[in-house]
Amino acid sequence: MPPVDPVRPLARAPAAILVRPQLAGNIGMAARAMLNFGLTDLRLVAPRDGWPQRDAWAASAGADVVLEAARVFDTVEAAVADLHRVLATTARERGQEKAVLGADGAAASLLELGSANLPTGVLFGPERVGLGNDEVALADAVVSFPVNPGHTSLNLAQAVLIVGYEWWKLASGGEPPHRAPAGVPATRGHLVGFFDQVEAELDAAGFFNPPEKRPVMVRNFRNIFHRLSLTRQDVQTLRGAVQALVRGRRGTRPFPAAPSQDRT
Amino acid sequence: MPPVDPVRPLARAPAAILVRPQLAGNIGMAARAMLNFGLTDLRLVAPRDGWPQRDAWAASAGADVVLEAARVFDTVEAAVADLHRVLATTARERGQEKAVLGADGAAASLLELGSANLPTGVLFGPERVGLGNDEVALADAVVSFPVNPGHTSLNLAQAVLIVGYEWWKLASGGEPPHRAPAGVPATRGHLVGFFDQVEAELDAAGFFNPPEKRPVMVRNFRNIFHRLSLTRQDVQTLRGAVQALVRGRRGTRPFPAAPSQDRT
Repeated sequence: MPPVDPVRPLARAPAAILVRPQLAGNIGMAARAMLNFGLTDLRLVAPRDGWPQRDAWAASAGADVVLEAARVFDTVEAAVADLHRVLATTARERGQEKAVLGADGAAASLLELGSANLPTGVLFGPERVGLGNDEVALADAVVSFPVNPGHTSLNLAQAVLIVGYEWWKLASGGEPPHRAPAGVPATRGHLVGFFDQVEAELDAAGFFNPPEKRPVMVRNFRNIFHRLSLTRQDVQTLRGAVQALVRGRRGTRPFPAAPSQDRT
Repeated sequence: MPPVDPVRPLARAPAAILVRPQLAGNIGMAARAMLNFGLTDLRLVAPRDGWPQRDAWAASAGADVVLEAARVFDTVEAAVADLHRVLATTARERGQEKAVLGADGAAASLLELGSANLPTGVLFGPERVGLGNDEVALADAVVSFPVNPGHTSLNLAQAVLIVGYEWWKLASGGEPPHRAPAGVPATRGHLVGFFDQVEAELDAAGFFNPPEKRPVMVRNFRNIFHRLSLTRQDVQTLRGAVQALVRGRRGTRPFPAAPSQDRT
């Protein structure tokens, strides 16, 4: 079977801008989440413990390419200066007259400009405290995730993950990385051949009883198998299984056979 | 402003079944991700280092309620015995004739039965190696995330997060946890009043030049502000700003005023 073509989105992916991130481990996990979903432009605004930090590499599970290209800025204004659209993630309401998008709406907004190869970006605030109101005011719109109101705190890298996931899903067409093997569905002819075989055996075994119920029992029986979307190979397997059961019943060996004797 | 009503999904949330998880930290982060999205039924199949493990609590960021209710099973069969639908997350193709769903398709499948209060669940394999083929065979369908083909490895807790995110998004209607403050959009009357003021001042200042271009310049100018969906308060703010600019220009103080003198 040929491998599924790698999905290569044609759009420019948004930058992830981590504002005053505190923990190197979170920066590394954010980089990993970014690369999972095709984001590579990491920008750090005034990371608390400086940059680079060894722990970020340790937590990135091989997303070195993202960490090595990361750029550091002193201010949010400098970090977003070249971006044509900027969204700000916030967990709580800020009293600002600004549209609130879910991560899916954010993906659509970013992809709109990214498809024209225009740079865009998403701001993520520091752990626990989030973005300042003046930083939120720099954004075109706010991104806020639908979460359980009883447990709203998302880890920084998880917020990056969800934004990246929705962006990739939309940009790539949402195809899973692989599909079910392309088994050829059985023709009606194969299926009916199987039904004829089974029903003849069931008639012989006295299964359809009372006889006047036979038509409805046959329909119900056939519908079980129609629900399965059987392939040609499935039908072969089932025909063999039925034959084996019938042969066992009609055969000369004792039935049920003791497994230890039967298998030798 | 009244708080947004907490979103309470009416459906039964799926169980997350972690099969042979290796790292307690991942179990804790998975519990945190579950609770973020309203999942509380955590099942552990043969956790490598036993159960309970202190490190899981440390990593769960307060999702104790999930960890304390976690149940441990010896086999996947036992862990899924009461579930009416079981999905298996896999990163790679398994050569099994089974539907492959994205996380959004998985959410729809789980919600279909969860809405009828039937228990469902999702299997997550051990770190690195994933589920065994016989374990995948226990599932009704496979879940696989659309990811960057160049960097496909998702952390265990991140896989749980994405399944939970899509489930909550669908079950809750996908509303962000808050909305923009409900500012009243300006009436056309307010807007036109603002335009009349500004255009009169711009006429006085000789802005519309040459005069025959005035109609198209006015239209362009008005369209800038129409794009903004201004509220009544926004219009008041802009009117005040224009008045201040005009007063500054016409006033007796030197213009531009030196800030240090102007502010005292």
